[in-house]
Amino acid sequence: SQNAESYAKPFCDFLTDNPTVFHAVDSMAHDLKHDGFTKLSERDSWRIEPGGKYFVERNGSSLIAFVVGDDYKSGNGAAVLAGHVDALTAKLKPVSKIPNKAGYVELGVAPYAGGLGPTWWDRDLSIGGRVLVKEGSKIVTKLVKLGWPIAKIPTLAPHFGTPANGPFNLETQVVPIIGLESSAKNQIEPQAKAGTFAATQPPRLVRAIAKELGLSDASNIVNWELELYDIQPATLAGLDKEFITAGRIDDKLCSWAALEALKQSARNGTSGSGIIKIVGLFDDEEIGSGLRQGARGNFLPIVMERAVGSLAGQHPASDLMGRTYANSFLVSSDVTHAVNPNFESVYLANHAPQLNVGVSVSADSNGHMTTDAASTAIFTRCAEKVGATLQVFQIRNDSRSGGTVGPMLSCATGMRAIDAGIPQLSMHSIRATTGTSDPGLGVQMFQGFLDGFESVDAEFSD
Amino acid sequence: SQNAESYAKPFCDFLTDNPTVFHAVDSMAHDLKHDGFTKLSERDSWRIEPGGKYFVERNGSSLIAFVVGDDYKSGNGAAVLAGHVDALTAKLKPVSKIPNKAGYVELGVAPYAGGLGPTWWDRDLSIGGRVLVKEGSKIVTKLVKLGWPIAKIPTLAPHFGTPANGPFNLETQVVPIIGLESSAKNQIEPQAKAGTFAATQPPRLVRAIAKELGLSDASNIVNWELELYDIQPATLAGLDKEFITAGRIDDKLCSWAALEALKQSARNGTSGSGIIKIVGLFDDEEIGSGLRQGARGNFLPIVMERAVGSLAGQHPASDLMGRTYANSFLVSSDVTHAVNPNFESVYLANHAPQLNVGVSVSADSNGHMTTDAASTAIFTRCAEKVGATLQVFQIRNDSRSGGTVGPMLSCATGMRAIDAGIPQLSMHSIRATTGTSDPGLGVQMFQGFLDGFESVDAEFSD
Amino acid sequence: SQNAESYAKPFCDFLTDNPTVFHAVDSMAHDLKHDGFTKLSERDSWRIEPGGKYFVERNGSSLIAFVVGDDYKSGNGAAVLAGHVDALTAKLKPVSKIPNKAGYVELGVAPYAGGLGPTWWDRDLSIGGRVLVKEGSKIVTKLVKLGWPIAKIPTLAPHFGTPANGPFNLETQVVPIIGLESSAKNQIEPQAKAGTFAATQPPRLVRAIAKELGLSDASNIVNWELELYDIQPATLAGLDKEFITAGRIDDKLCSWAALEALKQSARNGTSGSGIIKIVGLFDDEEIGSGLRQGARGNFLPIVMERAVGSLAGQHPASDLMGRTYANSFLVSSDVTHAVNPNFESVYLANHAPQLNVGVSVSADSNGHMTTDAASTAIFTRCAEKVGATLQVFQIRNDSRSGGTVGPMLSCATGMRAIDAGIPQLSMHSIRATTGTSDPGLGVQMFQGFLDGFESVDAEFSD
Repeated sequence: SQNAESYAKPFCDFLTDNPTVFHAVDSMAHDLKHDGFTKLSERDSWRIEPGGKYFVERNGSSLIAFVVGDDYKSGNGAAVLAGHVDALTAKLKPVSKIPNKAGYVELGVAPYAGGLGPTWWDRDLSIGGRVLVKEGSKIVTKLVKLGWPIAKIPTLAPHFGTPANGPFNLETQVVPIIGLESSAKNQIEPQAKAGTFAATQPPRLVRAIAKELGLSDASNIVNWELELYDIQPATLAGLDKEFITAGRIDDKLCSWAALEALKQSARNGTSGSGIIKIVGLFDDEEIGSGLRQGARGNFLPIVMERAVGSLAGQHPASDLMGRTYANSFLVSSDVTHAVNPNFESVYLANHAPQLNVGVSVSADSNGHMTTDAASTAIFTRCAEKVGATLQVFQIRNDSRSGGTVGPMLSCATGMRAIDAGIPQLSMHSIRATTGTSDPGLGVQMFQGFLDGFESVDAEFSD
Repeated sequence: SQNAESYAKPFCDFLTDNPTVFHAVDSMAHDLKHDGFTKLSERDSWRIEPGGKYFVERNGSSLIAFVVGDDYKSGNGAAVLAGHVDALTAKLKPVSKIPNKAGYVELGVAPYAGGLGPTWWDRDLSIGGRVLVKEGSKIVTKLVKLGWPIAKIPTLAPHFGTPANGPFNLETQVVPIIGLESSAKNQIEPQAKAGTFAATQPPRLVRAIAKELGLSDASNIVNWELELYDIQPATLAGLDKEFITAGRIDDKLCSWAALEALKQSARNGTSGSGIIKIVGLFDDEEIGSGLRQGARGNFLPIVMERAVGSLAGQHPASDLMGRTYANSFLVSSDVTHAVNPNFESVYLANHAPQLNVGVSVSADSNGHMTTDAASTAIFTRCAEKVGATLQVFQIRNDSRSGGTVGPMLSCATGMRAIDAGIPQLSMHSIRATTGTSDPGLGVQMFQGFLDGFESVDAEFSD
Repeated sequence: SQNAESYAKPFCDFLTDNPTVFHAVDSMAHDLKHDGFTKLSERDSWRIEPGGKYFVERNGSSLIAFVVGDDYKSGNGAAVLAGHVDALTAKLKPVSKIPNKAGYVELGVAPYAGGLGPTWWDRDLSIGGRVLVKEGSKIVTKLVKLGWPIAKIPTLAPHFGTPANGPFNLETQVVPIIGLESSAKNQIEPQAKAGTFAATQPPRLVRAIAKELGLSDASNIVNWELELYDIQPATLAGLDKEFITAGRIDDKLCSWAALEALKQSARNGTSGSGIIKIVGLFDDEEIGSGLRQGARGNFLPIVMERAVGSLAGQHPASDLMGRTYANSFLVSSDVTHAVNPNFESVYLANHAPQLNVGVSVSADSNGHMTTDAASTAIFTRCAEKVGATLQVFQIRNDSRSGGTVGPMLSCATGMRAIDAGIPQLSMHSIRATTGTSDPGLGVQMFQGFLDGFESVDAEFSD
């Protein structure tokens, strides 16, 4: 409908302003507080009241936000939306200072999943992430991003014949340059004191970071986690501006939409709702989710246990969780493949979603997805209640399917689950494409789910 | 012994009547109720008493049944039998309506693991599974199987020369036919209302399902999960009927035997038993067990926690589970390879089991099985107590071994475990062969385990 | 410093006296008792008090020990160290009796991961493991190791020309000899009674084992799990004895150091400490950890829950675990590759750890390790507090990285985690090398972590 496109710009700004997984989480936390969500620390005991709005972070790279309905009673379930906020990138090595070569200053980086792939050549890259700084006796985390292009991975001119057309060695040939040796300002650089972290990094980068953070002494930098990102802003495209083109769409598209849905659902009151509405955004999905802040971690289950526990006065019956899970529902939302017009024949007829139509359910017969009949029915009901259009995706029998966080979350919790995501074009490219109203259509559908699940579920006695 | 064969028929009936994983679970639930087991819902709180008999389903495709001994005290362990109830099959695609060809109505299906293999040609296949139906404001799940052959994958007559002898393409040539375009009854079919689920399926199938379910209006079908199965009943074979030949033997053979053992163990009273006897039957093992209702799910652990919790008055000591697991034992039971007379040389001498002899322990030195010395000793003791014969299977050093659910369950719970299964011939064929007394020998061995574990375990103080 | 080396000898004795995974766990249990740790059985309920010291075993091949601080309050975290105790070996086949050749008695074995490799030729191998024996009506597990070399895989003298230089077939040429046909003592051996386990093993081995166990009748052997191991004792090497050379260093080195750190941390009092200090040692990591006594098992989480639960009077608040985990930290410690001077070019410059310098953090950009900036900072702080030196390891972008137990444990618990291990040379050789003070440096670092984590963590408010 008409106003779905209004979400396009805010989504683009979000992408442009938050180039790393840390920035993304940080700015969501900021928005939630702004909406009256209380930040909970995993360390403290929690006091959760019906009608409360809370959120929890882990590692600063994943986040769970939840809203408790006024009429919540122990045993009631949760409506859960799950996505991931990490993207393909290249990370600085623990010691990223490498010897200069041929008069260039270079940087030691390592690929994160499909990072440093073919579409990374000759892109304007900058650096950002988090820095741990010692302030007195405290060590605090600060976010940093350098606001101009810093690094580039230069191609070799084809005139040089065959060396110019790969394959290329990831260790010795796909190395970014960040400066020229000779352009040192005129005074000799003070060597970082030996033994400090800073001494193991390129001095000029250390200085740029320190300056960006307003630090006078670089040896207060205890450590950092920085990555390369394409600095080109997200923008609208197409004749009727019906496309959004950006970097790191996979899976911020769904995560952002999910969170928007929660905020709005919370904005129009928690009265009359007896469930908990949860949005879970995880890290390192692209490398198999094998870390604690990933979906294989126990992040979601333990937040739910603590919330439910606290609502049950900290002494839940031992089967309370089982009941909660049994009454909950998970929407695992990873982007899906929009049909690519130049490669039609690799798609399964009738299972090839389009842009700007609606969220797409994605299924698989070999269990790489959680979608089954029951969960599709429930999700479809929610869609009908808000008049949202659903599409469906599945691969051909003569090809293989990717994975999502769905199976591992529903393994860990036992919640009924579905895989439904917003379609996008050219996944895993450094700069992909989605539809202008897709973010909005996502928000609608996800809100429809958050608001409608309770009543829809009632229709499914068993 | 004489009565091992008496299990052949009931086992055959079970296979025949329950062609899909949903039916298998449903009919086990039905038998359990009939035996006085109380069905527990994962949504409600549970009240569990010693001497009680209960069972829990998940997704209608996996089931855990358990019996609590009269003398159960918190901390006592469980004797657990685990198997899987899924089999190679072909599942309907989310949109299974495909254009008719040459006047046939065809069905879009996708292979489940090794489904649609060479032995699937010209078998009488029917369709069954579960359907979600809207009744008034409720949505209920109904099981459906069409009691007659529906689909067939037709060979091409050899008269047509070379096109008749493959290899064949899984997407375009191995396609089942389910009807004739022209055999529409005499009034024009009411097209399912657009937008309903039914509109995405072959109308006639929709109607057949609707009729089978006694639905007047097909648009009440919210969704379904259907699969193809060979409708030929399981039966005895061989001159002295010493063979059982059936479809879907892999791994219903062990699952059924395990459940039978539990029911009988329960039938002759829970007095004098201080443990919980559990049978866990999981779904999607053939595709890696990666869903909530599979062995990788938290199904088993959470059922044990809730049962133990409830027996401890819902406020179990927090170390109760650990004690329980420590006193428990898991028999992971997947079928093993019986020796094939026309291909003798691919087996390891002294490690090639025969039919109608007994359950076979299967071992592996690279941890693809849970079998170790302690678990073999315990299991052998149980065998001796009931006079059962055990065999052993292992591959040659110069070939590779398959996997089972054992390792993942004993991971999730920490229970001691062994891999022991009933031998079968031509595994992964659509219609395989086992021995007539193998189901019975399984029941005996498994019951010997359920009844004898408590006392045998006592012999293993540590 | 001066006393890091004092750990070398005890570590060596440990390796020498415990050639199999069963012996290693057994002797750690023995030391813990000696230090006043209470052995907890997973079967019994636990009573845990602040200031208490406890440990738990599983399958006799993995172990978890923990100490509770005096000022422990529910919600406080744990400092956790994790490693594995299994090593490459060759296991006896279920039926290990094979026919004699040219007057020699030979033994049927199967490789465990990379067992029977090139460095196994002409090593003095003995046999050990566990034996299940019937005593009256009890079946007890006894550990056995034959204290002298039993088996040898003999090379052919080079004088015979080409037949003497491989490649060799694993099933038919890499076969150990364990005796001479003709040296039977002069009385005819009593053949083991048919049908007993002993009848399926080489008679003379059965008798040697029986004698070693002081069994008069071999048919009381119910079963056993024996493996070949190099019987050469671990010892100091190098001019300044700065090397330890031993078999099975991978990963007993870190496991032992972790446990020592705990014992000492416990020895100098639990006063002033408000956390739980835990050490977890797992089995079958070399074959993928896929069994219950492996890291994929639930061993660690369940022990923590039971301890925290019992400390909260068996009725913990339901968010207690979450808080506990959130305040906990995991150091996953598997050995890392010390640089090999004769093959420098396969290492990543500046990420090639040395011996006797200190524990090495090992990182990976594809999530095969848990290391990240925050965990590195915390761990580094702990190091500074005790003046320990840290190194770092990462592979070159153009090669693959191994795995550790880290990711699976921090997934299961959600604890912040780092992968840090003690460097070693020639991994997977039957006899590898580490530094003399590496065990001690490990102990220090691990103790620094156990003792300093509480205060360091305080510096990381967020």
